[in-house]
Amino acid sequence: MAEFVGNLLVAQSGGPTAAINASIAGVIQEAGKHEFIEEMYGGLHGILGILNEELIDLNEENTRTIEGLKYTPAAALGTCRYKIDFNKAPERAAKDMDRLFQVFEAHNVRYFFYAGGNDSQDTAHKIHEQALQRGYELRVIGIPKTIDNDLPYTDHCPGYGSVIKYNATTVLEVGFDVASMATDEGSCCIIEVMGRAAGWIAAGTVLAKRTAADPPHIILLPEIPFDEAKFLAKVKFNVDVLKYCLVVVGEGLKNERGEEIGADKNRLDAFGHPLLSGAAERLAEIVQGKLNTKTRTVKLGYAQRAAAHSASAQDIIEAVACGEAAVKAAVDGKSGLMVKLVRVQNNPYQWTTDLHDLKEVANKEHLVPREWINEEAFLPNEQFVEYARPLIEGDLKAPRENGLPKFVVLDKVPVEKKLPPRG
Amino acid sequence: MAEFVGNLLVAQSGGPTAAINASIAGVIQEAGKHEFIEEMYGGLHGILGILNEELIDLNEENTRTIEGLKYTPAAALGTCRYKIDFNKAPERAAKDMDRLFQVFEAHNVRYFFYAGGNDSQDTAHKIHEQALQRGYELRVIGIPKTIDNDLPYTDHCPGYGSVIKYNATTVLEVGFDVASMATDEGSCCIIEVMGRAAGWIAAGTVLAKRTAADPPHIILLPEIPFDEAKFLAKVKFNVDVLKYCLVVVGEGLKNERGEEIGADKNRLDAFGHPLLSGAAERLAEIVQGKLNTKTRTVKLGYAQRAAAHSASAQDIIEAVACGEAAVKAAVDGKSGLMVKLVRVQNNPYQWTTDLHDLKEVANKEHLVPREWINEEAFLPNEQFVEYARPLIEGDLKAPRENGLPKFVVLDKVPVEKKLPPRG
Repeated sequence: MAEFVGNLLVAQSGGPTAAINASIAGVIQEAGKHEFIEEMYGGLHGILGILNEELIDLNEENTRTIEGLKYTPAAALGTCRYKIDFNKAPERAAKDMDRLFQVFEAHNVRYFFYAGGNDSQDTAHKIHEQALQRGYELRVIGIPKTIDNDLPYTDHCPGYGSVIKYNATTVLEVGFDVASMATDEGSCCIIEVMGRAAGWIAAGTVLAKRTAADPPHIILLPEIPFDEAKFLAKVKFNVDVLKYCLVVVGEGLKNERGEEIGADKNRLDAFGHPLLSGAAERLAEIVQGKLNTKTRTVKLGYAQRAAAHSASAQDIIEAVACGEAAVKAAVDGKSGLMVKLVRVQNNPYQWTTDLHDLKEVANKEHLVPREWINEEAFLPNEQFVEYARPLIEGDLKAPRENGLPKFVVLDKVPVEKKLPPRG
Repeated sequence: MAEFVGNLLVAQSGGPTAAINASIAGVIQEAGKHEFIEEMYGGLHGILGILNEELIDLNEENTRTIEGLKYTPAAALGTCRYKIDFNKAPERAAKDMDRLFQVFEAHNVRYFFYAGGNDSQDTAHKIHEQALQRGYELRVIGIPKTIDNDLPYTDHCPGYGSVIKYNATTVLEVGFDVASMATDEGSCCIIEVMGRAAGWIAAGTVLAKRTAADPPHIILLPEIPFDEAKFLAKVKFNVDVLKYCLVVVGEGLKNERGEEIGADKNRLDAFGHPLLSGAAERLAEIVQGKLNTKTRTVKLGYAQRAAAHSASAQDIIEAVACGEAAVKAAVDGKSGLMVKLVRVQNNPYQWTTDLHDLKEVANKEHLVPREWINEEAFLPNEQFVEYARPLIEGDLKAPRENGLPKFVVLDKVPVEKKLPPRG
């Protein structure tokens, strides 16, 4: 294989996680081993920053900072939800693509790595196709990242293990709290977690459960249409028997008509998805109104995906490996692929990385299979537990300072712009 | 000092914390050293369980479990919000007191320890007074416990250090997340924390702040009446300059008329306080409506007070010491007192325990002093930081299992009842 001399550009996209920076560290540390990768650039705020030619020189960052990325949540390079959408805005998209390749060419970018979820893999795929069409030699590898765990073909996604470790810890702790407060009056606690279409995050909280009586007692997944009567009967049963009921709900829980029960339909995000805020509050209204049971809510929101202090060591190791594998694939001459995690075996858990065609990955959502959910559809079953358990193993020895985690911030030394401002 | 032979009863009351079980461990471990304390009983669900003669035999618990209490959140003995209220229900209260002393006498309880907040110290005080009136020899010592940190005379309360360590960690992590997502559109994130009257918990999140530009940018304390115009101007300023704004709000934030902005006035708890749910949601409506800035909320709820996985080692050490000091005071012949924490010096932080008359403690709320809040009243100042910083120091080496914290549950071997059921 001929060594291909050129510069590297890496960027992050979509919602941050506790593990996405670890993948960037993997990219940088692996790329540093290959002399024919000359300059290492980071694109600020994903595609948006690249369009604005906002590149930083990653070789100016010290090695301790790069190592510190493994323990630092959020997107150290900045992220965006900007989409190059050929369907909705073909002219804008064509213009964006032209600009993107002007930036690549101006900075001799020949290795491009994009870490993100479904939309980001779609963007990576389009860039790969455009490079072929334009005859611009570019190696494009997608790095999986999403707490939602909804990318297809990969066994799971970096970021997922950490979010369910934190959420399961929270459910375990809140479960102890609510149980210790439980008196004859009965009470209910509803914890809302992320997950718009896929219930992987909600399902993961089942790891807090040791015995049938332990919380969580009910996990409501967006994949299963909400049945109010059945739900209320189950809450009542738990309150009658245990004096309390702990419910976990994925934010995107839908009724039988497919409408999200906590959605405010007037607010949409950049991809046209409705903004969700209130599944737990909505359920609390239902429980208090219909059962007259005192109900409290917890909404973890961004805290869950940023919880580096509780990251899964396994997750971080895999996230680093995905970054490394992306660089190895690219220097090996590959392009148009996404790194994926492959489970070799359970007990003891063994895994490896592989590559998958981006064309097949893009814009496909992988949901929790029905056969991994119990018959009454209120809890994931043993098959799910076997799948999820290894992903939360291990605790990081992350740096700390003054009783708090010590995170790193990149120096972000800008690369000199070579183009006129974006039109 | 003559040694006073009799049995011990310890109970917990009010909202659980990450540290209240550590105080119970301190009581049990210290009491084990004194032979004339014969039996050690735990009262289930505070006063409520004692009234129902629901006692457990703590000598039946193994020592590993008792040690494990130091790492276990919530109230291992169960807790309650039941109040013996001579003002509102004098007949019921008189009847309760008679029953309480019947239980004490039936089980030869001569040492009574009650761990809790303001209401619980009030209960302990009343029991002490009743013992004197009735000529029943009883030593009553209150053990401070409240995440709210609003007990007077003690420098701070066990439980407080852990809750602000967790909340400051969350604010730090969410701050990284929101900053990395910040684009020209601007965004706002509002994190709601506990604190009905006192802003100690909200104030504690300032520990996440290193530089002026760091989050949290605004901390809204219940002590400072909410000024919407001033608040919106400050949010706008931060969004203009930094592209994002992170706000922390104490759940009990009040408007200028003293009404809680997030309260639903139709719901009251057992003490007649309004139930709060929505300060962050209310603020989000205001920011989105008036500034048209995308706003997300986080509501930590019970998760913050139960977060043993992130407990402050300093807090746990002090909580254990408070339990030990309570027993030492009682065997020393003292009664009608609450253990308090005394700060000897800062830098390096030194502390000790002392005792304070329960009569003075009961039903008095200690708020954040105005001179510890900056002039524009949006952030605590250096004096507060100096006060709070030592309280979050140190991380526990808590037992873990399968990637999650390993908590203990008491065996709760019941003590044989000697009385007819409560009337």
